[in-house]
Amino acid sequence: MQTSLSPLGFIGTGVMGNSMAGHLLKAGYPLRVYTRTRAKAEPLLRQGAVWTENPAEAARHSEIVLTMVGHPSDVRSVYLEADGILAGMKPGGMVIDMTTSSPSLAREIFGKAAEKEISALDAPVSGGDIGAREARLSIMVGGDRGAFDRAKPILEKLGKNIVHQGPAGLGQHCKLVNQIAIAGVMIGMVEALVYARKSGLDPQTVLSTISQGAAGSWSLSNLAPRILRKDLNPGFMIEHFVKDMGLALEECRRMGIQLRGLDLAHQLYESLLKKGHGRKGTQALILALEDMPL
Amino acid sequence: MQTSLSPLGFIGTGVMGNSMAGHLLKAGYPLRVYTRTRAKAEPLLRQGAVWTENPAEAARHSEIVLTMVGHPSDVRSVYLEADGILAGMKPGGMVIDMTTSSPSLAREIFGKAAEKEISALDAPVSGGDIGAREARLSIMVGGDRGAFDRAKPILEKLGKNIVHQGPAGLGQHCKLVNQIAIAGVMIGMVEALVYARKSGLDPQTVLSTISQGAAGSWSLSNLAPRILRKDLNPGFMIEHFVKDMGLALEECRRMGIQLRGLDLAHQLYESLLKKGHGRKGTQALILALEDMPL
Repeated sequence: MQTSLSPLGFIGTGVMGNSMAGHLLKAGYPLRVYTRTRAKAEPLLRQGAVWTENPAEAARHSEIVLTMVGHPSDVRSVYLEADGILAGMKPGGMVIDMTTSSPSLAREIFGKAAEKEISALDAPVSGGDIGAREARLSIMVGGDRGAFDRAKPILEKLGKNIVHQGPAGLGQHCKLVNQIAIAGVMIGMVEALVYARKSGLDPQTVLSTISQGAAGSWSLSNLAPRILRKDLNPGFMIEHFVKDMGLALEECRRMGIQLRGLDLAHQLYESLLKKGHGRKGTQALILALEDMPL
Repeated sequence: MQTSLSPLGFIGTGVMGNSMAGHLLKAGYPLRVYTRTRAKAEPLLRQGAVWTENPAEAARHSEIVLTMVGHPSDVRSVYLEADGILAGMKPGGMVIDMTTSSPSLAREIFGKAAEKEISALDAPVSGGDIGAREARLSIMVGGDRGAFDRAKPILEKLGKNIVHQGPAGLGQHCKLVNQIAIAGVMIGMVEALVYARKSGLDPQTVLSTISQGAAGSWSLSNLAPRILRKDLNPGFMIEHFVKDMGLALEECRRMGIQLRGLDLAHQLYESLLKKGHGRKGTQALILALEDMPL
């Protein structure tokens, strides 16, 4: 059976990519990998992945290439540079970018891939490193329906909630919608905690009172308790959230809309980034409102 | 058994008060009622409540008086005016204000009640008209622990999640914390929907994708779908939410803190109030960002 599985390429084997590529290997897919720092691919190479010298080479030997890199500029270079994926990929192949990246860039890659008869999906995820490790990511997919159907058995090795959102770019847009909703929740959550402490309430008692009702949210249940025990370690890092909100704001400007809550969240988080808190978790937003976390 | 239950007074029999007082009647408490517009008390009078001409008279015949009125100014007048509750109440009695009102006023009433050897609790609720009807309110209580213990059997006829938050005023503070958290969630929710629609996503598909994950909230699950079906009817009315946010902002000024998300939400909702949307549900915030609800 396993010999019939399509050869895959995986570009970008950081924390997320390592888990994801690992699931594909375990499922029996022949896998070629490339990442900027070869040492980060070692765990996968030990599991049977084959190292390649650049994205083009990975693409040359693969039917489908998945990418999970850092920023839109990284996406641009792994896809479009001289030794990039589109330079190596054969017609009939497919590329799937799982980085949270620019919707406009996703459409650009879709167009350039189409010129070479290559299918392209933008398929960013939510669920973080734990979701990646447990193969429980939510995957928001933009691109042609046919390509989505073809990719689905592979994506099902990585996530649980895999939804086609529409044409190219809409996977990215959907992920940004997710981040916009979170931005508001985070502001409300930390402001509520600041007020609670300042007014003399016991924040723990308050949380258990309000988190079951109309004020309830994933963040209030999962991140507020971390703030109370002074745990600012990342589930999701501030530097990544700032990147995502920046992408959303860029699209807002392009679409001619102003989202003042998103603006505010971006401002507050950027102030934390500048103070060196970029690698703390998003719950560290409390530091932008209070000098001390407790 | 029923003859041993304390005679109660209930002031303010609007939508919430009617349901709440009804539960007390059903539980067998002798009940005197007063409300500004007598017609609004008729359903309770038919169930056996006794009409009184003013709050003082209701208090004169009651061991415990509960109040559920509109604004802090109403609370002030039903408690502190010449024919108000404290003028009629005997020493040893207890008052429980369930209005969402000013924490400072709650402390003032607590002090004036104490001078007359009357116990006072501030006990605002969340859960809305449905919570009141189903006796499933969350009740956030400030005041002495002993008074809380004495009130609890009565409050248990009205709600499920009844928590002593600390001294006088902290019930009100806790409710305001709840509203502050909601304010942020609401901004994030409507901004996410505005972005989703503008970017060409199908909002229904997006909602079902993101509401189970880290962006999830009570509002995203319960209010966003109403926006999509253009239902702006109140679960919770904008005019009440603006009142509550105003109270919170007043306390913020007093405590010397600035909550910019709360400021923004208050501004946006106040603009809707000025346009005549005060009796729509809080999900009508979408109207402050989009000209048309779909």
